[in-house]
Amino acid sequence: MYGIIGKMKIAPGQRAVVIDYLLEGIQSMPGCLSYIVSKDPGDPEAIWITEAWDSKESHRNSLTLPAVQQAIARARPLIVGFDERIETMPVGGHGLIGVA
Amino acid sequence: MYGIIGKMKIAPGQRAVVIDYLLEGIQSMPGCLSYIVSKDPGDPEAIWITEAWDSKESHRNSLTLPAVQQAIARARPLIVGFDERIETMPVGGHGLIGVA
Repeated sequence: MYGIIGKMKIAPGQRAVVIDYLLEGIQSMPGCLSYIVSKDPGDPEAIWITEAWDSKESHRNSLTLPAVQQAIARARPLIVGFDERIETMPVGGHGLIGVA
Repeated sequence: MYGIIGKMKIAPGQRAVVIDYLLEGIQSMPGCLSYIVSKDPGDPEAIWITEAWDSKESHRNSLTLPAVQQAIARARPLIVGFDERIETMPVGGHGLIGVA
């Protein structure tokens, strides 16, 4: 499995809008086992995204999906930067869709 | 919702054992919406844990569960430290058990 932990910095006052774009874009992404969008309680301009995929390839393919490209295009002007981007190898746990 | 992103540093050669302890301990934790254990591909002594709970209280209560306490007791001698511990507020996505 392939995972990403990322921290996204958003233009002031735009976090809720970007969260909406993200949640709209991720409705059906083949190979996506988990994709959780979270606010940073200490920073009103930061979003954390934790992802798990059945493979790195599935993640890469997701970036070509129309819904994902639309979400990225809409959110990009409101994204100031990425503070953290950590690649991981999920091995198990709760909430991995379809993984026993 | 309440979330945690944590990086755990493990004694050399003990990561697989600690992962087993963690996965055994988390079988049924009330209020746990997601609990994913991942290896750090760049550091053979690091484990990432990303968690989502329906509340901070559910997370706190989980630490009193016998299975969790046993996992902690077994793993603790093999844990060198915690490099990162980030609290988050999950708002939505995929893989949140029971959350539409």
